[in-house]
Amino acid sequence: MKKTLNLLMSTLAVCLAMPAAAQFAKPEDAIKYRKAAFTVMSTHFGRVGAMVNGRAPFDAKAAAENAELAATMSKLHWTAFGEGTDKGETRAKPEVWKDNAKFKEAAEKMQVEVGKLASTAKGGNLDAIKTAFGPAAASCKSCHDNFRKD
Amino acid sequence: MKKTLNLLMSTLAVCLAMPAAAQFAKPEDAIKYRKAAFTVMSTHFGRVGAMVNGRAPFDAKAAAENAELAATMSKLHWTAFGEGTDKGETRAKPEVWKDNAKFKEAAEKMQVEVGKLASTAKGGNLDAIKTAFGPAAASCKSCHDNFRKD
Repeated sequence: MKKTLNLLMSTLAVCLAMPAAAQFAKPEDAIKYRKAAFTVMSTHFGRVGAMVNGRAPFDAKAAAENAELAATMSKLHWTAFGEGTDKGETRAKPEVWKDNAKFKEAAEKMQVEVGKLASTAKGGNLDAIKTAFGPAAASCKSCHDNFRKD
Repeated sequence: MKKTLNLLMSTLAVCLAMPAAAQFAKPEDAIKYRKAAFTVMSTHFGRVGAMVNGRAPFDAKAAAENAELAATMSKLHWTAFGEGTDKGETRAKPEVWKDNAKFKEAAEKMQVEVGKLASTAKGGNLDAIKTAFGPAAASCKSCHDNFRKD
């Protein structure tokens, strides 16, 4: 009975883990994808940052579009940190997998903050965007500090 | 008078070209960005393709989400083929710049077809998705054949 239960549990674990892992044929595909998604996200986030920091003129439409794209991208990487993707061309620290709950929490925090920035940017008010940008940028930094090699 | 006109025209040309070029600090940033955007696009497009070709079980929600992401990404690359981005780590053929009108036309064709796929996928009908997938895939291939090195 215990054996059957164990088998059931491990089958269930495999099934639950599959959707994310099965999305990529090889671990290197997942790594390439998540790096690409980060590159696109940071480009668009950076464009909002340039307006916030006065390095680029404020353009409400562009700010809203770029923040929306950053928010869309912020939801994409997390299926690409599956098993076997800790090796190879990656700067991800072992902590991503060792301390996965904390990593997930940091990822979710980032999604929430970048999402808030996107909703705020729709309003077209630069001061409000500045206020929302800070915590969003901090959520990126915190994850980089803890989970990304220099 | 002719000199003034020439100066005006070239100033205008610079201004018109600026928004796209100014979005990237360096040509290599533009190249990295467009490659990343293509990677994300092809990943999501490929997931729809896997369902269309029977390599993955059909999941209407996933098909719609992936097609929508591909459509979002399909609009992003085209500002990243500015001046100076023909050299370096890129497989873009010189034809992108030499025959820019044709390149633009191919890009727009792709955006239209991938956009159609996304609207179709919202309907959740696999047969309709299959029908829309063909021209979308052909529009990718046509651009690769003409504008990308092997």
